[in-house]
Amino acid sequence: MIVAFSITPLGVGEGVAEPVARAVKVVRDSGLPNRTDAMFTTIEGEWDEVMDVVKRAVDAVAEVAPRVSLVLKADLREGVSDGMTSKIESLERHLS
Amino acid sequence: MIVAFSITPLGVGEGVAEPVARAVKVVRDSGLPNRTDAMFTTIEGEWDEVMDVVKRAVDAVAEVAPRVSLVLKADLREGVSDGMTSKIESLERHLS
Amino acid sequence: MIVAFSITPLGVGEGVAEPVARAVKVVRDSGLPNRTDAMFTTIEGEWDEVMDVVKRAVDAVAEVAPRVSLVLKADLREGVSDGMTSKIESLERHLS
Amino acid sequence: MIVAFSITPLGVGEGVAEPVARAVKVVRDSGLPNRTDAMFTTIEGEWDEVMDVVKRAVDAVAEVAPRVSLVLKADLREGVSDGMTSKIESLERHLS
Repeated sequence: MIVAFSITPLGVGEGVAEPVARAVKVVRDSGLPNRTDAMFTTIEGEWDEVMDVVKRAVDAVAEVAPRVSLVLKADLREGVSDGMTSKIESLERHLS
Repeated sequence: MIVAFSITPLGVGEGVAEPVARAVKVVRDSGLPNRTDAMFTTIEGEWDEVMDVVKRAVDAVAEVAPRVSLVLKADLREGVSDGMTSKIESLERHLS
Repeated sequence: MIVAFSITPLGVGEGVAEPVARAVKVVRDSGLPNRTDAMFTTIEGEWDEVMDVVKRAVDAVAEVAPRVSLVLKADLREGVSDGMTSKIESLERHLS
Repeated sequence: MIVAFSITPLGVGEGVAEPVARAVKVVRDSGLPNRTDAMFTTIEGEWDEVMDVVKRAVDAVAEVAPRVSLVLKADLREGVSDGMTSKIESLERHLS
């Protein structure tokens, strides 16, 4: 499955780059395909491995923030591999 | 933590009440505090027990749909119990 | 359409009930059908009237917070009225 | 503000690239800074111009689908320009 998620620390001020960087580090160290943009980090894998990464990312932020908000969107589809790339390729074919 | 989530089956037509009912049944059978409204089902518990319920709810929908979309928002806060009730009570105090 | 949304103020500490109450007040004063639970506020109406309420709710929070995060999920379906009630009734029929 | 959004057509089968391409075309024609990945399209601008684009993107999908689900996350912060780039640069500085 493909998961896009965003972690927001509360109670640490309005600038949240340092706590969020802790989460992104967990993702990059995970070995799963991943991408981070201004709003979400996207990873791809099986449920258990993806959710383990999300949990550890949340924990990394919770170490430095008293409250954490998590927003997650997942796309689950049997038999799709390399979905992060193939979804965009399919989309671009319809746009060209 | 408190988690609100919504499962959308794709490829089964525009009426999705039957597949969604399968997910809600998993939640109600879980024993965790829960509430379902028109847009989200909210449950409360520890990460592992909540995510296990969400996974089984997704699996129940995936049994009858070729593709499943999951949207989830979580509020994680140490030392808060009965958050589904206490958050609303706190909010209503500020509104009265 | 039916819209569930959640507004999170950043930079005001971990307790956010007072700023969030400002948003809920805007919704309740709007006259649109609405419900607030621990995670989301749900309203129903046409796009322009619903989004006007969401914007004013965001503005009410932004008056007291330097940064605001908004999460929104909408269900748009032609010809459905009183969807907040009818969706739940349809769901409960499948569960009984 | 920066907005990431995802539009899911229901009742058109499990492959949704063609309807989704209609939405992405609206975004790309809008002139606002934008990026589309496997899960979300991100755009940046003022509330009214961003929400006008989102509405027209939803309408473009609703022309070919009986039901549409919209998920949106917004980050509103006064005085931030070019946030899509500056947020990532700030994050990368904390990671290096």
